[in-house]
Amino acid sequence: MDSDQGITIRYVREGDFNALWPILRGVIKAGDTYTIEPGLTREAVREMWMQTPRATYVAEIAGEVLGTYYIKTNQPGGGAHVCNAGFMVSEAARGQGLARAMCLHAQTQARAMGYLAMQFNFVVETNTGAIRLWEDLGFETVGRLPRAFRHPVEGLVDARIMYKWLGD
Amino acid sequence: MDSDQGITIRYVREGDFNALWPILRGVIKAGDTYTIEPGLTREAVREMWMQTPRATYVAEIAGEVLGTYYIKTNQPGGGAHVCNAGFMVSEAARGQGLARAMCLHAQTQARAMGYLAMQFNFVVETNTGAIRLWEDLGFETVGRLPRAFRHPVEGLVDARIMYKWLGD
Repeated sequence: MDSDQGITIRYVREGDFNALWPILRGVIKAGDTYTIEPGLTREAVREMWMQTPRATYVAEIAGEVLGTYYIKTNQPGGGAHVCNAGFMVSEAARGQGLARAMCLHAQTQARAMGYLAMQFNFVVETNTGAIRLWEDLGFETVGRLPRAFRHPVEGLVDARIMYKWLGD
Repeated sequence: MDSDQGITIRYVREGDFNALWPILRGVIKAGDTYTIEPGLTREAVREMWMQTPRATYVAEIAGEVLGTYYIKTNQPGGGAHVCNAGFMVSEAARGQGLARAMCLHAQTQARAMGYLAMQFNFVVETNTGAIRLWEDLGFETVGRLPRAFRHPVEGLVDARIMYKWLGD
């Protein structure tokens, strides 16, 4: 759908999960950025990433799936105009602009779906690369959760809530 | 379990849902405090309130169920030491200390379950009674989500994230 620096972003297809699984498993196993239960089965991870969200996408370079993201409604009812998104990039493909391209793409998609804001519920304080990138893309830190994340190396660290208004 | 000003708090029992349903339905229908889809069926509400959480409780005065709350893990994996709780009081029973008694009870229960903190993810800014009560009970506003709630009367209003450390 989009193409920038050779990055193509498109909707996920069922057959993509073989390529996605090592990326997701790597991020989950590292356990230092996402609050995902480390013992989840392959099938549970597939469902969480590809079925539960409103939409899931993959990012490719030269036909190889190297990143993925989802968009979902963050709260039902009176909060349903705010979406949440989650992004993962293959460890081998870091630093090539995939996360940036996906986050820009996500904002366009979210606006097209009618969302008025995007919220990241849990950005671990030690994930400084992500924080810098989200800030650079206009997200603001609107909250800090003291010692809300148990980092596998650092112990209890803070998590941020980051937010960007997408409406006019 | 606890008794204060004639308030008794105990674990919910399956048969309590007949008494709980009007309380839950009233709060959901008002739509001004909780982000719950207003069209949920009775069965979906029962599941959301009584099955999904880790534990659900009711508060009684003179044997009548007038309030209820749940405790659940707020984030899996590295965030699993922080719980979330939600409280509802029958409209006819407001101002009798039920919410306060339940929140004190919830903190004791949460500590006993091993949680180190309690987080309220979405306290609507116009819900000033709740905000005052949570502040009085030691919760701090650690985040503000701009225009994250569509209030049925006020339109888009902010929501707060409130947090209390329960560990030593």
